[in-house]
Amino acid sequence: MKDNTLNGRDLIGIADLTKDELTFLLDRAEHLREQVARERRLTLLRGYLLTTLFYEPSTRTRLSFEAAMHRLGGQVLSVADARATSSAAKGESIADAARTVAGYADVIVQRHPAIGSAQEAADAVDIPVINAGDGAGEHPTQALLDLYTIRQEQGSLEGRAVALVGDLKHGRTVHSLARALAHWQATLILVSPAALAMEPATVAQLRAAGLSVEETDDLGQAVRRADVLYVTRIQRERFDDPAEYERLKGAYVVDRALLTQGQPHLTVMHPLPRVDEIAPEVDTLPNAAYFRQAANGVWVRMALLASVVG
Amino acid sequence: MKDNTLNGRDLIGIADLTKDELTFLLDRAEHLREQVARERRLTLLRGYLLTTLFYEPSTRTRLSFEAAMHRLGGQVLSVADARATSSAAKGESIADAARTVAGYADVIVQRHPAIGSAQEAADAVDIPVINAGDGAGEHPTQALLDLYTIRQEQGSLEGRAVALVGDLKHGRTVHSLARALAHWQATLILVSPAALAMEPATVAQLRAAGLSVEETDDLGQAVRRADVLYVTRIQRERFDDPAEYERLKGAYVVDRALLTQGQPHLTVMHPLPRVDEIAPEVDTLPNAAYFRQAANGVWVRMALLASVVG
Amino acid sequence: MKDNTLNGRDLIGIADLTKDELTFLLDRAEHLREQVARERRLTLLRGYLLTTLFYEPSTRTRLSFEAAMHRLGGQVLSVADARATSSAAKGESIADAARTVAGYADVIVQRHPAIGSAQEAADAVDIPVINAGDGAGEHPTQALLDLYTIRQEQGSLEGRAVALVGDLKHGRTVHSLARALAHWQATLILVSPAALAMEPATVAQLRAAGLSVEETDDLGQAVRRADVLYVTRIQRERFDDPAEYERLKGAYVVDRALLTQGQPHLTVMHPLPRVDEIAPEVDTLPNAAYFRQAANGVWVRMALLASVVG
Repeated sequence: MKDNTLNGRDLIGIADLTKDELTFLLDRAEHLREQVARERRLTLLRGYLLTTLFYEPSTRTRLSFEAAMHRLGGQVLSVADARATSSAAKGESIADAARTVAGYADVIVQRHPAIGSAQEAADAVDIPVINAGDGAGEHPTQALLDLYTIRQEQGSLEGRAVALVGDLKHGRTVHSLARALAHWQATLILVSPAALAMEPATVAQLRAAGLSVEETDDLGQAVRRADVLYVTRIQRERFDDPAEYERLKGAYVVDRALLTQGQPHLTVMHPLPRVDEIAPEVDTLPNAAYFRQAANGVWVRMALLASVVG
Repeated sequence: MKDNTLNGRDLIGIADLTKDELTFLLDRAEHLREQVARERRLTLLRGYLLTTLFYEPSTRTRLSFEAAMHRLGGQVLSVADARATSSAAKGESIADAARTVAGYADVIVQRHPAIGSAQEAADAVDIPVINAGDGAGEHPTQALLDLYTIRQEQGSLEGRAVALVGDLKHGRTVHSLARALAHWQATLILVSPAALAMEPATVAQLRAAGLSVEETDDLGQAVRRADVLYVTRIQRERFDDPAEYERLKGAYVVDRALLTQGQPHLTVMHPLPRVDEIAPEVDTLPNAAYFRQAANGVWVRMALLASVVG
Repeated sequence: MKDNTLNGRDLIGIADLTKDELTFLLDRAEHLREQVARERRLTLLRGYLLTTLFYEPSTRTRLSFEAAMHRLGGQVLSVADARATSSAAKGESIADAARTVAGYADVIVQRHPAIGSAQEAADAVDIPVINAGDGAGEHPTQALLDLYTIRQEQGSLEGRAVALVGDLKHGRTVHSLARALAHWQATLILVSPAALAMEPATVAQLRAAGLSVEETDDLGQAVRRADVLYVTRIQRERFDDPAEYERLKGAYVVDRALLTQGQPHLTVMHPLPRVDEIAPEVDTLPNAAYFRQAANGVWVRMALLASVVG
């Protein structure tokens, strides 16, 4: 492992991390996972306090960070829904709330529906702030766990063909992952209905960053080509016409019949929660990595917390 | 103590446990209680993580499980109200939520308003799932703490006359307790208004299981006969006619005057919360066991967690 | 330090504490702060459980108590919003809820919107109850952290001139602080619009307690005289006429221009959350103590918990 250059730093967007730092975190995650298998609870962050400050609820992300902190030997102060508090209702700024919490804790993990809110908190305090989602902005630890999962399932990140499926227009998850994959010369296969296609400007940026990008609306073709199939939800609220939603939703369902067209080593991922876009019959295939992917969140968050704190 | 046959197992309904296993848990609860009195925090589950996954809030049950886990040396991830999370709102299944949480924790305690929800979670994951209430279904740890309390207060479970008072038609608490008491040749005295009487099929089952069952609507008569008076709430929402509710509610109030008719060793229990059905003047009588009963929840839940985990 | 006379006691109002006890807690807070700087997590309350029982959300106060308990080596059961629980909705009394929680924990910190609710809980249980706010009643640990901050920032509490600014009619915070300052021969300078002036009866009580009290509606004059400027929010909902609110609000804004009139050692405090009453440009002045003040909450709450528990 390289040296830790992350001590004391914030993590707002995935682009804050160099390729070396990403690799450092993925290696450290692997190492911590093995250590937990042997020792269950480590002592790296003994005596340290994490505050999870969630202005909108996200059980999955919050629990994953809290599990990571506990496994590192630390303690947690939990705010599952800060909207409900009188202070936010009284008009307290994100900066003031962060400054106050910084008096109680050693690191803040914040989720807030507004783009830029994580940076606002980070600018206000001296302790590290980790962005656990700022609306349509970034969610860098999701990209980290996605990278970890691809590496784990495929053996390497180098040159993989990753098909991104579903809503590629609004999904911050796929944008962050795509940007990070540029470090490893990936091929992206973008699969979406025209109305939910990735913005041309974003595609151009990804190409400029060194990615080979193909676009298609044919899911079967993508499955035949891909090493990784990364499926996301198509959300009803994006459509004016409910009939159009129903038609498109049906066209992007991953089931066993579809996967028989794929390569044997195909890895199926999903940021979860999944609704109908992956059929339950897929869950028992060895290719179905989405629950392992969710569990991997603990290891990468342990690596991140252990690296920025202490 | 017998051997622990519970390791790695779920607890969905009280009938999952044999008489030997019930006795094992009650003995172990007693033993753990003594150990906590000496050492405060044990190390049995050091390094283990419990997730309390509550789809409807229940402060009492959640805190009792969390206190148990802390006293065993473990750590807790707490979801006080999973309804509020975006994932449940987005239509994630109980099975998917459980699979995700299973990636973070070593045991799940779940409460959900739908019958069968605990089994659904248990079928989806490899770690133990404990049912903390599945709507009108089961709430097995309530039955465990009730058994523990009767044994503690009466010296033994064998052959006690237990009067069950109030709404015997809907109450899952009394059904589970009654079923468990069949192992100890108890006599049940069922005391309820006709509209809230236990279903004849349920009564027949209990008799078939070896219980002696008497039915009456005369609370005074039951008090004179009983070793244990187990009072439950009569809920307004069960009645079409509010006047009928008021009349009946008044007829099933336990006060000091009523208890003078009882035996000196009579134990008064209630699953709580209590509203008007036991007068506050009863609280200071030595017979009033309901707050001791609530506190006993920690010991039986410690016994259960220590037995299924680790 | 004097002897600890607080063991096993409740804290409902600031008047429960003698001058000696206040000094004991402030000294102990200072001592614990130094110990945490060296050791991070202490072992004073190892094995003890705190329940934060909040019937209305207050992230700031709850996290501060929970951080204090963790730093003392204890564990926490957290109820961020007890209103949402079925038991409170079903009509359970404050006393019954406290009795139940007392079966799980070693100390209760309660917040509830009704005056007298903390005393009601304390009367019901044998374990210590700490009032974290009972509506328009008391919030004694806020007064404690205010005293600690004045002593810290000014070197001593003795004979300080403390200007209380804003809504002095409704603010429980300023009432409790004023009462406590009587022990140290403070001079109070009351600065408020006439409609929000402190009640004459309250002023008379403070004078009878030995305080020198001056009243003015001129903020500039107060700033020139004061050692400490304690600013509070003027709440819109106190005014029938919105125009009147806007006019007054603007007249009580603390900014850099105003503070140039003050003494160099002036300490600016605020119980937070702050909205518009202190301009953000003030935050970087060394006089701006309000975020240090919030952080001090952890040290005084550690001192209190360590003194009443164990």
